[in-house]
Amino acid sequence: MRRIAAYTAALALGSCAAATRTAPPPEPDASARYTFWRPSPVLEAPDPNETVKNSAAVDWRDVDPDNLLIMELAGGGRVAIELATDFAPVHVANVRALARGNWWTPSSVYRVQENYVVQWGLNESDKPLPAGVVKAPPAEYDRALAGLDIRPLGFPDSYAPIVGHVNGWPVGYDPEAGRAWLTHCYGMVGVGRDLHPDTGTGGELYAVIGHAPRHLDRNIATIGRVLEGLDRLTAHPRGTEALGFIKDPKNHIAIARIRLASQMPAAERPSYQVMRTDTPTFSAFVTGRANRSGTFFRVPAGGVDVCNALVPTRRK
Amino acid sequence: MRRIAAYTAALALGSCAAATRTAPPPEPDASARYTFWRPSPVLEAPDPNETVKNSAAVDWRDVDPDNLLIMELAGGGRVAIELATDFAPVHVANVRALARGNWWTPSSVYRVQENYVVQWGLNESDKPLPAGVVKAPPAEYDRALAGLDIRPLGFPDSYAPIVGHVNGWPVGYDPEAGRAWLTHCYGMVGVGRDLHPDTGTGGELYAVIGHAPRHLDRNIATIGRVLEGLDRLTAHPRGTEALGFIKDPKNHIAIARIRLASQMPAAERPSYQVMRTDTPTFSAFVTGRANRSGTFFRVPAGGVDVCNALVPTRRK
Repeated sequence: MRRIAAYTAALALGSCAAATRTAPPPEPDASARYTFWRPSPVLEAPDPNETVKNSAAVDWRDVDPDNLLIMELAGGGRVAIELATDFAPVHVANVRALARGNWWTPSSVYRVQENYVVQWGLNESDKPLPAGVVKAPPAEYDRALAGLDIRPLGFPDSYAPIVGHVNGWPVGYDPEAGRAWLTHCYGMVGVGRDLHPDTGTGGELYAVIGHAPRHLDRNIATIGRVLEGLDRLTAHPRGTEALGFIKDPKNHIAIARIRLASQMPAAERPSYQVMRTDTPTFSAFVTGRANRSGTFFRVPAGGVDVCNALVPTRRK
Repeated sequence: MRRIAAYTAALALGSCAAATRTAPPPEPDASARYTFWRPSPVLEAPDPNETVKNSAAVDWRDVDPDNLLIMELAGGGRVAIELATDFAPVHVANVRALARGNWWTPSSVYRVQENYVVQWGLNESDKPLPAGVVKAPPAEYDRALAGLDIRPLGFPDSYAPIVGHVNGWPVGYDPEAGRAWLTHCYGMVGVGRDLHPDTGTGGELYAVIGHAPRHLDRNIATIGRVLEGLDRLTAHPRGTEALGFIKDPKNHIAIARIRLASQMPAAERPSYQVMRTDTPTFSAFVTGRANRSGTFFRVPAGGVDVCNALVPTRRK
């Protein structure tokens, strides 16, 4: 089985107020040696949960059934994943081919590592790959910035020159280098791989279950995001082997099958929506996440990191 | 029970290379509208796990048994927490008094919220408070910066003007305002509270189990950090009530008792160490976390956030 990051240790459900997110961020304070910026908290910012609740139909996009991967657990419960088609197209095509070939039926979750990832699937040594699967995909770890209409978050990031969102996905980007990549936030799904030049076939996948391991950004093919059900995997005893691998297969989480929603009978298909990220509603959501107010909070931060402003999703 | 944030929705085990962390960070790039900085990746940075493994005894400090809270679970297993005495002294004194009064014997973990917190303890309405507990502590949500010898992390933060470490604790701070506070990273422990002016007695505590909810910084009394055993609480079905509260007490995680290590017979006391954060070793660790290299990584980030460079701890 692949070790992914083997050398590392380690839903919310929207009319809304005017947004301030697209304004330029405050100028850096060059007078203080270590001060890169000074947060400018917004008092009485919109409550982000209310923003979601009061959103309009136009604030959401439907998840395409061809991009919706449904994992059914043998013990009951379902994990739904949206595939990100714009960032690692060969890996995503592989995942679709593996699903259509019923390759993961059955399989298991064999790694649960505290504050890091869960990992599931099969290795190509376990079972021949179905037709149409590219055995050695290119290193789709980032992509050209050109062609992406990214909305910047508006706050500094500890890893990337700029972070923001495009089409419902969290991204880091570098305008000088002209590259963009998906950020490893909670719930993001990537492709397990061995050492270079292996990039993984897509047969073994992982999802982030803890604090964002952003050091994986640009080091691994990131292909999607869990929309629902990740808590069914996190509520499982951690693997006791190195990196959280679960030694005894009896203790794996059995997966009955994995398929695309488009493979399911129309009447059985679950359907999901993701909040659009190019709208005033999403801007207000971000402003609200960055400036928590209401009766509980005493001090709004005036900033938020891209992985603490997860794009809202919902069952349709 | 208190709702804490009611309106919000690894341990590792060190001579090391020269450190670059205390050098000034790169100048902000004022030419690009949204670019606050440009990461300057360090190639072939020290492996952070090797840095910990090769550390010397002098790189570590012992955890005082009077600051070490031991939770024994009825079903087996133990959660160890270090109390942070410099940030919320009245709340910490309360926690010590509650432990010495065996107030939490027995009690339970009654909230497990995915990607957020676990919460445990008792409410003062459940049981009279022991002598010495301050019923309405002051709002110890931040403190004076003066008197803290903070080492800046050296990378930008999405919430605070500056982040860094002092005495093994992660902090945010504002030199202009002269205030400092503990940051809500994975494993940090805070005091559940109701709405202002309540600040919580310390009878109900929570620990962060997911992505750092940094919006809680400066909004709640933060009193410590889990050193070991948090995975025993995260591997539990999520509460199905709002905010992850577990409705049926039968499904709570039963706590047999909570006491300070100093209350235990000397022969039974567990002992822990925390890596010092004012050393070249820790600087090298941070540099390594910000610039992952070795055979797996292809691109070092050149930055890391304060909650993805958790201070190493170990059993002694």
